[in-house]
Amino acid sequence: MARPAGLSGFPEWLPGERIVEQHVLDSLRRTFELHGFGSLETRAVEPLDQLLRKGEIDKEVYVLRRIHAEEGDAGLGLHFDLTVPFARYVLERSGHIEFPFRRYQIQKVWRGERPQDGRYREFTQADIDIVDRDTLSFHHEVDLPLVMLEAFAALPFPQVTMHVNNRKLAEGFYRGVGADDPSVVLRAIDKLDKIGPDKVRDQLRETGLTDTAAAACLALAGISAADASFADEVSALGVKDPLLDEGLDELVRVIDAAAELAPGRLVADLKIARGLDYYTGTVYETVLHGHEDLGSVCSGGRYDALASDGKSTYPGVGLSVGVSRILGRLLRTGAVMATRSVPTCVLVAVDHESTRAASNAVARSLRSRGIATEVAPSAAKFGKQIKHADRRGIPFVWFPSDDTVKDLSTGEQLPADPQAWSPPEALLRPAVTAEELHQ
Amino acid sequence: MARPAGLSGFPEWLPGERIVEQHVLDSLRRTFELHGFGSLETRAVEPLDQLLRKGEIDKEVYVLRRIHAEEGDAGLGLHFDLTVPFARYVLERSGHIEFPFRRYQIQKVWRGERPQDGRYREFTQADIDIVDRDTLSFHHEVDLPLVMLEAFAALPFPQVTMHVNNRKLAEGFYRGVGADDPSVVLRAIDKLDKIGPDKVRDQLRETGLTDTAAAACLALAGISAADASFADEVSALGVKDPLLDEGLDELVRVIDAAAELAPGRLVADLKIARGLDYYTGTVYETVLHGHEDLGSVCSGGRYDALASDGKSTYPGVGLSVGVSRILGRLLRTGAVMATRSVPTCVLVAVDHESTRAASNAVARSLRSRGIATEVAPSAAKFGKQIKHADRRGIPFVWFPSDDTVKDLSTGEQLPADPQAWSPPEALLRPAVTAEELHQ
Repeated sequence: MARPAGLSGFPEWLPGERIVEQHVLDSLRRTFELHGFGSLETRAVEPLDQLLRKGEIDKEVYVLRRIHAEEGDAGLGLHFDLTVPFARYVLERSGHIEFPFRRYQIQKVWRGERPQDGRYREFTQADIDIVDRDTLSFHHEVDLPLVMLEAFAALPFPQVTMHVNNRKLAEGFYRGVGADDPSVVLRAIDKLDKIGPDKVRDQLRETGLTDTAAAACLALAGISAADASFADEVSALGVKDPLLDEGLDELVRVIDAAAELAPGRLVADLKIARGLDYYTGTVYETVLHGHEDLGSVCSGGRYDALASDGKSTYPGVGLSVGVSRILGRLLRTGAVMATRSVPTCVLVAVDHESTRAASNAVARSLRSRGIATEVAPSAAKFGKQIKHADRRGIPFVWFPSDDTVKDLSTGEQLPADPQAWSPPEALLRPAVTAEELHQ
Repeated sequence: MARPAGLSGFPEWLPGERIVEQHVLDSLRRTFELHGFGSLETRAVEPLDQLLRKGEIDKEVYVLRRIHAEEGDAGLGLHFDLTVPFARYVLERSGHIEFPFRRYQIQKVWRGERPQDGRYREFTQADIDIVDRDTLSFHHEVDLPLVMLEAFAALPFPQVTMHVNNRKLAEGFYRGVGADDPSVVLRAIDKLDKIGPDKVRDQLRETGLTDTAAAACLALAGISAADASFADEVSALGVKDPLLDEGLDELVRVIDAAAELAPGRLVADLKIARGLDYYTGTVYETVLHGHEDLGSVCSGGRYDALASDGKSTYPGVGLSVGVSRILGRLLRTGAVMATRSVPTCVLVAVDHESTRAASNAVARSLRSRGIATEVAPSAAKFGKQIKHADRRGIPFVWFPSDDTVKDLSTGEQLPADPQAWSPPEALLRPAVTAEELHQ
């Protein structure tokens, strides 16, 4: 068998890179659980009609077929996000769930898109959502981005800025300037970064807006601020609409809370549209400083009906982190790395195969105090055993013949008691170092 | 949208059940890392020719197709175990891996089999393997089952017994009694539990063995012991073969080490065959006490060539735990459960929506000391807020108006300082309780 080549779009990390990923996922989990979000995992597959029901056929779903079955037996595809399966799970288990339901979900998703930088066919997302039955209090739209900003602040990533808008504000405004279908205006504004203001203006005119109305919509999209001052700018445009007022009030509340609790990390940005139709309130996008070309690395919003079973609807608010997209970039550029490629803290040397049991005994003693320990695989020359540790970044080598422990970073070798010795806390586990932390 | 029904063979846990699963996976990870095994995750898909190359077409592979692509474009299938992808990974990354390579891998696998009790179409496996280049020292075959028994001992599961045999011992013995092809004898012996000794004897006779030889093979399969006494029983059968002697010596070494370090947990059981052709030394199977009908819940063995790239071969030894198979059974029967369905330790009550900020401030203070805290979703009557906590098993409710904390298990409500109060350590996180621990 020849050496296989990697599969484009299906990233796999080396052991040291995987340690960085574990660190990131553990950290996300810790923050989410600290805020009372419970873990959920859904199956990888959904019925195809569910996956395609929002017309999201552009997601390039992977369809499954059992190899021995007649064509198309399964009617199943791999999920392309964690929202569709979550909505289905909530409906299926609504009788067994307490609402409001706070869950986080960290899983792989699959999209058969053309692989490119920052676009994978298999990648890990980390979602948090709060879903309630029939009604969901607005304050969750204030709370959720703060949880996520706290999660990002704990990660070995560059600083992020979350850009926030409100669908009610936008739709009320568009209606206020005379748009028959605000969603058409929204879709045009969504293209602002791609095609520029002139072409957007042309499109707005084509939808039947007057020059003045189109100009107002573009002026609205130009408003951005890290504090509530944006509200005056919106008011200055002189558009009147009750939905606009409601949305404006909501966005001010989000911005005010963030200004106090996560200063500088969240800005009102009135051009944020989010393509998806189902958002109905606050919408969020997040950029990673220095990696703006990746696009939004954490997006979401408020939806009034995640799902409905005829009897109840389930409104919610959610945010989704593109973990693989961020990690792929930061690992490739060396911006984050692990201090070693193995969990091991101590390698116990072996003098001779006949004394391996003595080395095993030292290892058991260290492990009983939570110190990750390996025993040398062979009784090679000590130089070779030390090299074995050094190559993996294992910080200590233990010599059982005279119970001494060598610190490979200093070269110092000192007597030590296997029943009592402990490494410095910082070396107990591999750490993750970041080139430019939260700059 | 009507309420969807579950998909047979694709288990999904409720929030409290997922907490049990997290506990189990965290515990496995902790033990594996303590022994220097690093985490690895491989992509979910492999080229079909790799998945089918061992003729394992009975595994009912799920084949993938992109929904917009011409038929069969991808040539990819979902992996049905973690060994095939691991072998491929080792070949692909051999230049970037330090050998011997100790890795654990906890991932979902997929098999399109008919779902039944203990058989899923999507399930989680937890594997550990030690793989080296060209040669792998025998002592790893002694070490690995001890790591796994330590991992099981830390789980909230009933006791396990690992049954161990040695391929060299069996093959040497079969050759010694005159079998031309020992693997044919092995396959017949593998059916012992299914079809009984009489039918196995008939099959052995059909392969050309004499009555005496067939009887000797059945006598060997009948030998089982928790100490090295089995070696005398084997010798008493009077068969001479150098490979038999080598295998006997190896099995004695495994049993002796386990008798000292995991007494009673590992037995020599000379009928263990393991279906798969690639094992070449020690083979392992594991039964869960009281759930013997599940079959082996943790299996593996030594293989001389996990993979080969023409230049090098990669021998190894591995064990794989069927996590979902065990959990599905223990969760369904209520043998294990979580003390609560959420990570939350404290619910902070809200007097009135206008004082929500004060409740948020208490929550932040508690979280800063690692106490998972939620704020009540609405300023409902306190009775309703307490019920909100009680239904989820949240042990404490905090009242910010007078800074008192109510212990829901005792009903006691006491003054507390949000800057200093801590719950008893045992209540900080949800715990997992087991009905019959290690009986």
